[in-house]
Amino acid sequence: MLEKIFRATIEEYNLVKKKDRIILGVSGGPDSVCMLYQFQAIAKDYKLHLVCVHLNHGLRPEADEEERYIHSLCRKLTIPCVSEKRKVKTLYAGDSLEQTARKVRFDFFLACARRYKSKTLALAHHKDDLAETVLMRLIRGSGLRGLRGFLPRSRYKSLTVIRPMINVTKNDILAWLKDHGVSYCTDASNTDDVFLRNRIRMQVLPLLRELNPNIVDTLYNASQAIAADYEFISLVAREAFLGLRKREAGQRLYLDLEGVKKLSQPLFNNVIRTAIEELQGHTRRLEVRHLKEVYDLVHARRQTSIVDLPDLLVKKDEKTLIIQSLLL
Amino acid sequence: MLEKIFRATIEEYNLVKKKDRIILGVSGGPDSVCMLYQFQAIAKDYKLHLVCVHLNHGLRPEADEEERYIHSLCRKLTIPCVSEKRKVKTLYAGDSLEQTARKVRFDFFLACARRYKSKTLALAHHKDDLAETVLMRLIRGSGLRGLRGFLPRSRYKSLTVIRPMINVTKNDILAWLKDHGVSYCTDASNTDDVFLRNRIRMQVLPLLRELNPNIVDTLYNASQAIAADYEFISLVAREAFLGLRKREAGQRLYLDLEGVKKLSQPLFNNVIRTAIEELQGHTRRLEVRHLKEVYDLVHARRQTSIVDLPDLLVKKDEKTLIIQSLLL
Repeated sequence: MLEKIFRATIEEYNLVKKKDRIILGVSGGPDSVCMLYQFQAIAKDYKLHLVCVHLNHGLRPEADEEERYIHSLCRKLTIPCVSEKRKVKTLYAGDSLEQTARKVRFDFFLACARRYKSKTLALAHHKDDLAETVLMRLIRGSGLRGLRGFLPRSRYKSLTVIRPMINVTKNDILAWLKDHGVSYCTDASNTDDVFLRNRIRMQVLPLLRELNPNIVDTLYNASQAIAADYEFISLVAREAFLGLRKREAGQRLYLDLEGVKKLSQPLFNNVIRTAIEELQGHTRRLEVRHLKEVYDLVHARRQTSIVDLPDLLVKKDEKTLIIQSLLL
Repeated sequence: MLEKIFRATIEEYNLVKKKDRIILGVSGGPDSVCMLYQFQAIAKDYKLHLVCVHLNHGLRPEADEEERYIHSLCRKLTIPCVSEKRKVKTLYAGDSLEQTARKVRFDFFLACARRYKSKTLALAHHKDDLAETVLMRLIRGSGLRGLRGFLPRSRYKSLTVIRPMINVTKNDILAWLKDHGVSYCTDASNTDDVFLRNRIRMQVLPLLRELNPNIVDTLYNASQAIAADYEFISLVAREAFLGLRKREAGQRLYLDLEGVKKLSQPLFNNVIRTAIEELQGHTRRLEVRHLKEVYDLVHARRQTSIVDLPDLLVKKDEKTLIIQSLLL
């Protein structure tokens, strides 16, 4: 059953092509160990070049043992395995520990991808993870973009990130491992938000399950519907943005002011969001109230006004709306 | 403070115009009693014609007492008051009790609006209600449309429904009533989903508040952002729909098949959703998997294929996609 869902997901979203070189992010926990076996099972059919990669954050005492377990497992499965030790705490600088750990891990994945000439990273996120992620984003505050949860296929810099376990539940995984007598590390976790995620897993989801026994599927369906709507908005906004962009020079992006003025507020918001994403690569700290301020600048304020946003300035001259990044 | 938020919300969303005739839905509970006082306070400035309307569902023993309390309160405030007794249980027919109660209440509001030549119904929904509603919709399953929660201004048939308390919290309301020595009925409730809503209020929200002390504001902000995105999608989809509609005759709506074929999947979904809303007035039972089936019909299936949807058929001929309502 799990094997079927795994293959069907790969086909549905075109996650894998013949002869792909794929690096597999493996923590040693049940999800990624199961994924490792699933990839090994399809490797011949697809003629895949697999590399198992493992980052030892050195945060827990069992970490070294887990690293050894993964190496022994890969020898058994004849899959090449690379691991590395990188302490997260020493790199901590301004960002939350969580963001830092994520960045360190993805930098490691990028380095592995370069070394093994791979463009694809497979992660073992499953359906329960998705439900937890949607709830976590909702609790912390998030717009449409965050409420999509994660996607079967996404990008991180030059990497295509695939999640072929997205349609599999945690129970499916544990049952499969038990049926096949496969062992795994019980404490291994690559999630960087352990505290909040555990509370959601142990307290919030069980409570919601009492109100809706299918809550995981319900959240999964909501995130899929939201992902589709988000994609739609992005496409339309991107098109409008490209029509309004006059030029981009270094830290500045110039938009046609008259055209921007004509946008309806929802389209305006999404065009400005797209512009900021284009300029700084993300819109993590951008909030709805910031967009209201820019709208106000365009429609009501004096020409010399300046709007301060996180790491950004927005101003206007007679014919142009100027968005300027303050980061070097 | 509460008075200021109430007035600011009315101004921000243009909820009230001078000389408006407004019917106020009042259950007798703290929220609607507070709203009644707020409207009385602005009635002179706006030269409003107010009518307090109350439906006695006759479901609880205290219901008659509550009805009498509202009448005495309105005499004190010199606001005309109408009430009526309509038993919900006897009307139960197929729909859930909840849907029936809602329909009965809104039919009563519509009748009152006609009688008093009013086009506006004010309801006392507040910020905590909104947070509960968003969670309720998420738990039961909902797309973007449902996750908007309710809006400061919406429509029900010929009525404009306004919610000027939407930015006020339950605590604001209770504090205001206490400060002003105003009494209210403690069990009065016009919500039809008491069981689920109570579990959310008593169990889910307190748990989420431990994870985010500002959870009510966070959910409010998410719903506002989603409402804006939903509006954007609706606008674009409606425009595309109007361009593709060939005609509408009785129970059938005809769309240009070649044009429909050219739509990207997200736009396709929203155009079909718009068409169905146009045809039957709502899309309550429409799910993402239904839209996938219609997409499949348009792109892959034989010409004689028929897709069965709740209360609908979808089929195609050489040049037309036909959506047919099965309701009389």
